[in-house]
Parts: sequence; structure tokens; C-alpha cells
Amino acid sequence: MTTILLTGIDPFNGETINPSWEAVRALDGETLGSARLVARQLPCVIGEVGGALVAAIEEIRPDVVLCLGQAGGRADVTIERVAINIVDARIPDNAGLQPVDEPVVAGGPAAYFSTLPIKALVAALHAAGIPASVSESAGTYNCNAIFYALSHHIATRRPGLRGGFIHVPFLPEQAVRHRNAPSMARETLIEAVRVMIATTLITTQDVKLGFGSEH
Amino acid sequence: MTTILLTGIDPFNGETINPSWEAVRALDGETLGSARLVARQLPCVIGEVGGALVAAIEEIRPDVVLCLGQAGGRADVTIERVAINIVDARIPDNAGLQPVDEPVVAGGPAAYFSTLPIKALVAALHAAGIPASVSESAGTYNCNAIFYALSHHIATRRPGLRGGFIHVPFLPEQAVRHRNAPSMARETLIEAVRVMIATTLITTQDVKLGFGSEH
Amino acid sequence: MTTILLTGIDPFNGETINPSWEAVRALDGETLGSARLVARQLPCVIGEVGGALVAAIEEIRPDVVLCLGQAGGRADVTIERVAINIVDARIPDNAGLQPVDEPVVAGGPAAYFSTLPIKALVAALHAAGIPASVSESAGTYNCNAIFYALSHHIATRRPGLRGGFIHVPFLPEQAVRHRNAPSMARETLIEAVRVMIATTLITTQDVKLGFGSEH
Amino acid sequence: MTTILLTGIDPFNGETINPSWEAVRALDGETLGSARLVARQLPCVIGEVGGALVAAIEEIRPDVVLCLGQAGGRADVTIERVAINIVDARIPDNAGLQPVDEPVVAGGPAAYFSTLPIKALVAALHAAGIPASVSESAGTYNCNAIFYALSHHIATRRPGLRGGFIHVPFLPEQAVRHRNAPSMARETLIEAVRVMIATTLITTQDVKLGFGSEH
Repeated sequence: MTTILLTGIDPFNGETINPSWEAVRALDGETLGSARLVARQLPCVIGEVGGALVAAIEEIRPDVVLCLGQAGGRADVTIERVAINIVDARIPDNAGLQPVDEPVVAGGPAAYFSTLPIKALVAALHAAGIPASVSESAGTYNCNAIFYALSHHIATRRPGLRGGFIHVPFLPEQAVRHRNAPSMARETLIEAVRVMIATTLITTQDVKLGFGSEH
Repeated sequence: MTTILLTGIDPFNGETINPSWEAVRALDGETLGSARLVARQLPCVIGEVGGALVAAIEEIRPDVVLCLGQAGGRADVTIERVAINIVDARIPDNAGLQPVDEPVVAGGPAAYFSTLPIKALVAALHAAGIPASVSESAGTYNCNAIFYALSHHIATRRPGLRGGFIHVPFLPEQAVRHRNAPSMARETLIEAVRVMIATTLITTQDVKLGFGSEH
Repeated sequence: MTTILLTGIDPFNGETINPSWEAVRALDGETLGSARLVARQLPCVIGEVGGALVAAIEEIRPDVVLCLGQAGGRADVTIERVAINIVDARIPDNAGLQPVDEPVVAGGPAAYFSTLPIKALVAALHAAGIPASVSESAGTYNCNAIFYALSHHIATRRPGLRGGFIHVPFLPEQAVRHRNAPSMARETLIEAVRVMIATTLITTQDVKLGFGSEH
Repeated sequence: MTTILLTGIDPFNGETINPSWEAVRALDGETLGSARLVARQLPCVIGEVGGALVAAIEEIRPDVVLCLGQAGGRADVTIERVAINIVDARIPDNAGLQPVDEPVVAGGPAAYFSTLPIKALVAALHAAGIPASVSESAGTYNCNAIFYALSHHIATRRPGLRGGFIHVPFLPEQAVRHRNAPSMARETLIEAVRVMIATTLITTQDVKLGFGSEH
């Protein structure tokens, strides 16, 4: 049986919920086609989150890992293209730490590209009526650290595993507290996760669609 | 019995749906508490839309009128404060006309303030977890023309009637075609309309909350 | 001789400079063609600023009044179309007061339109290579109070006087402290004021250009 | 003598000027302290631009290379942190080609970090009153291709050379044609280049300042 590991993150930066966890916890234990879905919540603690993710992978032995995170201020579901080997925290994490210009993995390469079919995911979300785009940066905080740790684990230990990172907007109830912030409904986010799982499972080779940016 | 007239608008500017109509047509014929809801679709034809609205008011004899319109690019439900006596179209309307710097009502005053409890509406939407704010401009196009025509009709013919204008974001399926555009789910929009109706019915005097802007 | 009164405003909301005053004080005492330029700084005190402006008009007896104000977050020079009879302060003014939903002038009409040739100003700024647009809202704070007080004075006491309000972006040194805020150089702002003065003086009838907005 | 190579890019995407070239050509032939400045214009032709840059480096033998590019829509000077080994063109380049998901350098590593003191540059620009920030993505078009080609050349052929990429906003005269686009004056851009050169020359070790982003 195919197993999909879905991860969300704890609330941080004064929020009481995190849309990434709301989106995936609703699917924990479901089956989608022949795939079994398992959801796990990761901490917003930069020094621990990579280890927590690897431990979950070792326990669950998934075939695909979709890691989600909150991108407050973004308007659509953004499929991250690249994880970079840097931590540069503008605000403290949930352990109160704020590392600046440290590597995620000492000695690791500068970056890894997603092993998800990122263009096919955007196209499938669009076809489902869900705003989505490719993002060229997952930031330099906890989300990028998860993405890099996942990619490094795949590259060095689990070459058959496919995985990547997806940022999602605030939920409407969060956006209430942020002047002019875009949001996306829980139902839309959950549907987006279903679409991304199904698309990943049927896509062995990504499509070539010009979804990049000039800068 | 209390009657609420809800209006949405035809699609325009290349869209095939208009979120304002999607939000209100779902409620047509419903009762909410003791209120009967009637939804009507108005044209995006600047020279006709005021007359169409007044005809609907004359026919339905509502106690409250909530007119909705699409504000592509805005992220939240925006309660309009003021209608101005100007039409200045940047793009043609659905009749192919583009009036510039003409009055909505020749000889009418420069502006009317909404007779809805705009601050109470924002507060109630926030309490319901729906992003909302006061807007200081309904534009200079079809939406403002509706709002001005409504306000002028209230001021000159139906002083007991209360009414105003609310702009709503794109639906997600529209935002797919607009790079980085925020959106709001149909269900959230419909819930927002319910909240606004209930709040208007129980609010006889608006609350004083500083929801303005420096510019 | 033609006299032009230019006004800027004191710094507010934690700023130490105000770009509106920087733009006009550089021109104080100059002549532009046959026009004498006089610059005055108005307070960011909502309850006093209208009186201060009227006193300056009574003293200087200008033919044209250009009032400028800071619009932090806007990217271009925005020519305000309409002043509304409301004060709704989201933050305290420099006297520590924060009036909410009070009129600028008790008993005054809901709004006044600018008596400047707003479309000609935008077109002339564009021709000079300076980003500019028509704005449909001057806010509900000190700037709008100035604009409304000016317009009310013109309408009720000085029908021959022409005047209006222009918002300008942050200066670059201000934008340093505001993440992602656009800015405009002092030299560009000063040139913009010169262009607006010259254009106002030669324009007796505004041009019809579709510079409005859908919302 | 120290030599600084400054590069800008040809106009593209319908523009008739490119602010990156306007900013550096004004400095061509100048000396700044003991440094000689040489400016070169690179094509917006993705398949040729890397070779053109390397040829300029081979000819001029600089100690530092500052490559600039246009980022229409950004409000400040953005110091790029990382170049990625991907081309994903959303629009054709000046040769009419639009490569999608091709490497900049076949077989090259996924990414390189800038060898400029990016944090010190931001801090120095702020001290000079010029809006600036670190950017986590140089896009996937011609600018990123320049940055990657430069970084690959440094890593594989010229380990003592320092260089990186900086994006600059539209000039005001460009922003006139782009609704709501931020801009920066030529004089501000030229001053920014001077500040960045001087800062690079005196900074041997970058400072640790939390200028990253959560996403």
C-alpha cells in the first residue's frame, strides 16, 4: 500500500492556529484511492524540526511526503521549488531562538530542488479552481529548514522517496487580525491537499510549463 | 414581515462569474429569523443599473437593501462608507460604454454616506472569523453608480429604507487567472451575507470604532 | 501677481520628517513664471488644522492652494478627487486625540470635489516621467480634514479660489524603516510640485481622461 | 589598483530603458577611493548572457563584480542571497526564446550563495537612507542566469573574485506605465551603487543581522 506523510506545523509568531496543520490533520487516517494518509504536526523549533521530521519518516516509511507551512501574506497555495542551506531568523522560533546565517545541515550542499512534480501540482490545482503558483523561495526560517532537512534525507538516505514543501495562506479567522492579509478557507486548503496527493501519485515525470519569474 | 433585498451584479471585464451574485443568489427565497430574503442580479451597464435597482426596490418594497459587487484584488469583505456622484470608467461596461467624469445623478449632491451600520458590520464579521474592513471608496464605476443611485433614492423617496454597498473579493476559481490575486470561498461569502443581514437587523445605532485610514 | 499657497504637514505617527513639507518648503519664496510661491506647514492636529489653513489663506490671499500630505505605502503622487465630511482616526493625532465618526464641519455637505484639474495634473506628471494617479479617497484623518476644510472655505467664502489635495509617498530615508514600502526622492517630489503648479495655472478646464477605478 | 566590474542589462519585456544599466553606466570610468570602475551592458538573452559576463571578467580582470538587474514591482534595492541552477522563463527573452526548466550550467550544483557581504550592504544602504533588503530569490530568468554564471565562474575558476547580484526597482519614468508600481530615482540608484562598492571593499567578513524571512 502507498503511504503519504502529511506534515503541518505548530502555531508561531503569536498565532493560535497554523493553517498547515488545519489542512492536513483533517485527512489523518483517510485513504485516497489506494493511498493511506498519515498526518503529523512538527514544531516551530528550528533546531529540532529536521530531526522530528526524519523520525516521522523512519517510523511511517512513506512513499511521498508533503510538508505544509503557513505563509502569512501570500494569497495562494505556493509550491516551493528549492530548499536552501541557510537559517536566517527574523523573529524567534517557539524555543525563543533566532539563529542567523547558520546552515540547516553543516556541510550540506547549498540547495536541493523539490522532488515533487511542482508544475503538475500547480496545473492540477488551477484545474480544480484553486489559486496556486510556484514559489522560488521557502524563506530562511522553520519552513525552509523542514524542506531542506527532508530533501537532504531523501538525497542521502532515501533516494526513492519523493517529497517537497507547500506554503499556504492564513485562514480567514487569522486574517481578521492582519490588515489586508489574504486568506484561504479550510475547505479549500483540504481540497488542495487532496488534489496535490492525487496528482503526485499519478505523475512520474513533471510537465514543462513556464511558471517561473523574472525576479 | 421584514424583507431584505440582496443584489449582485453580472460578470464583467472578461469574467464568467461575479462573486457578488454567487454570494446572494444562494440566499434567494430563504428566511433568516423573521426576514425574507430576495436576491436580484443587476447589469454591469452604468446607464441602466440605477434604474434597474430602483425598479427592484419599488417591486419588492424591502426594509433593507444590501448591494454587493466584485472588487478583484481586494482580500476582504469591504463595507463601503460613501457613494460619490461621479462616473469615471477606466474600462467599458457591458454595453460597451465608458463614461468619463459624468455625474451618476445630474444635480445630485456630491456624495451620500451609507445608511448601514458599517462599523457594526465589520465588528460582527470579525467576530465570525471573516476578514472585513471599512472602505473609503467604492470606485467610480458600476458599483459606485449602484451605491449612489440607492442612496439618492433613499434620501429623496424612501427615507425609512436602509441600505449600502459591500465589495467582495474574487472567488478562488477566478483568482486562478489573476497572478497573486486574493480570493474568498463561496461559503465564506454566503456566511458573510448572513452575518451582515442579522447585524443590520439588530443594530439601530452604529458603534463608534476607529476603522478609518490615514490616507 | 498670481500667488500659490503650498502646504505640507508636520511629521506624525513616529516619523521625524514629512515628505509633504520637504516637497514644498524647498519652493517657499520662489517664483515660477509669474507666480509667487508661499509654503506653510500645517499641524497634524485634526481639530486645529482647518483653522490654520483658513488663516493662512486669509493672510496670503492665494489664487491657487495645493495642499500636500504623506501617504506612507503609496507608490506614486496621488491627486485626490474628493474630500468627505468625516473624521475617523485609526491612530491619535499629534495632540493625542483620535476622533471617530465626527464631521469635519458640522452641518457641511457630505463631500466636495477637488477644484484642481485632477486629470490634467496626472497627464502632466506622466509626461514629466513622474508616476501619478487619481485617488478616490484622501482617507478619514488629518489630510482629508485639510482637504475638506479647504473645499468648504472655497465653496462658502472664496468661490474664485482653486485648490485641492495631493498625497505623496514616503521619502527613501523613511521607507528604510518600513518593510517593502515604496518611496519617492525629494527631487522628484519637488519637480512634481512645480509641474502641478504650472499645469494648474494653464488649465482652465480639466481634460476628460478615464483615470477612475472599478472599486 | 582595485578594479570593480559593474554590469547592467539591456531593456526587455517592452521597456526602452533598464534601470540597472542607467545605474552603472553613469559610473563607468570613475574612480572611487583607490578603485577603478568599469561598467558593461549585458544582453537579455539567457543562452548568451553567462558567456558575455565571463568574457568581460576575463578581459577586465576585476577584484569585485556587482551585477545589477531590473526588478519591476519591487520597492527597494534587493541584495540577492542565492543563485539557483534553473531557467524557467515566463516570457521570451530578447532572442525570442523561452527555456523552461533547463539548468543554467548543465551538471552544476543546485545553487551558490553570494560572495558579497549581503548583510553589510543592506546595513550600509539603510545608513545612507536608501531602502534595501536581502532577497531570497533572483527569479528564474536572465538575472538569475547571470548570477549563477558569475557564481559558477568564481567557484570553478576565480576563487579570489567576489561578486553577486542586486535587483533594482523601475525608474520613475518606467513606473508611469505600470499601475501602482514603485520606483527609485536614478540619483538614488547611482548613490546605492557607490555605497555598495565602498562597503564591499571595506568588508572582509559579513555581519550577522537577521534579515531573512519566514517564507
